[in-house]
Amino acid sequence: MNFLEEKILNDGTVKQGNILKIDNFLNHQIDIDIMRKIADELKRRFHDVEVNKVLTIEASGIAIATMVGNLYNVPIVFAKKGETANSTDDKYMSHAYSFTHKQMNNVFVSKPYLHATDRVLIVDDFLADGEAVHALIDLVHQAGGQVAGIGIAVEKGQQKGGRMLREEGYRLESIAIIEEMDWETQKIIFRS
Amino acid sequence: MNFLEEKILNDGTVKQGNILKIDNFLNHQIDIDIMRKIADELKRRFHDVEVNKVLTIEASGIAIATMVGNLYNVPIVFAKKGETANSTDDKYMSHAYSFTHKQMNNVFVSKPYLHATDRVLIVDDFLADGEAVHALIDLVHQAGGQVAGIGIAVEKGQQKGGRMLREEGYRLESIAIIEEMDWETQKIIFRS
Repeated sequence: MNFLEEKILNDGTVKQGNILKIDNFLNHQIDIDIMRKIADELKRRFHDVEVNKVLTIEASGIAIATMVGNLYNVPIVFAKKGETANSTDDKYMSHAYSFTHKQMNNVFVSKPYLHATDRVLIVDDFLADGEAVHALIDLVHQAGGQVAGIGIAVEKGQQKGGRMLREEGYRLESIAIIEEMDWETQKIIFRS
Repeated sequence: MNFLEEKILNDGTVKQGNILKIDNFLNHQIDIDIMRKIADELKRRFHDVEVNKVLTIEASGIAIATMVGNLYNVPIVFAKKGETANSTDDKYMSHAYSFTHKQMNNVFVSKPYLHATDRVLIVDDFLADGEAVHALIDLVHQAGGQVAGIGIAVEKGQQKGGRMLREEGYRLESIAIIEEMDWETQKIIFRS
């Protein structure tokens, strides 16, 4: 069992509705030691990959992206959400459905911050159905850049995002993959 | 002139409506070297202050808070925005007017992440009218904690936030304070 799986077992809570609550260390309060380890582990797993930019989406991906960008010593870009679609001249624009907020969000990056020469490592805290990551991939491709890899802290393996991205041929590394979880017993099983 | 004032002069743009556009290095694309220097400088300025938690507000404060928390080796908490006010049982809740989005936002932190024993360093990328910082102070006080200091990257000195916070007796450190700026000439004058 790795450091993140252990942390999830020790500090996480399973809530009804297939919700893993780990906002005590990952995405509301941030345990900086865990965040450092996540960044170190992603760098280790992508050691053979050339990266010149780290891309995430606001808000909770920003902490991981900052720590990974700090290790790689490359710029970080965070895509923004929710602006109306009527001014797309200077932006790459895509869309992602938010299950948390039950709405379709615009996802965009200002054009000067993504380039055809970019080899982009996409990172995020959670991967579930892959809506946000697919929007980020779309933005990189609109700019003519390449997706060097996708680095995730916690993948919800029962949902389709991870499977789709692997089938599409992306190099996806998730540090912890939830195979099963049960809110009544609080049991969590990780993919080995 | 310090490193951040130099960076603003070199890479910033003044837009009509008293807007300083520095999203090429601070709050959309992030220059990790500048971010490291901002964190180092805030730690230096607050060297005599005991801090056991770093607090910011989503989204663009998270990168600075992460780097500062990494230096202090303390937990980071980012307040969330915009949820409806009908479930406040488990949250400290305040309010801030957003000039960018022209709306009043709820600002909240889950109760377990702020305590009466906390000595909190509040950080953010921009300080203008002080709406967000005042909401964060309110949250710390609701929890019974103390505000150890307020660390800001760029203060818009023509707006009232900085003056109010200093008059209220808070220890406020802003790395760059804009005294005047003019979009027609692109001239920017910093407070010395």
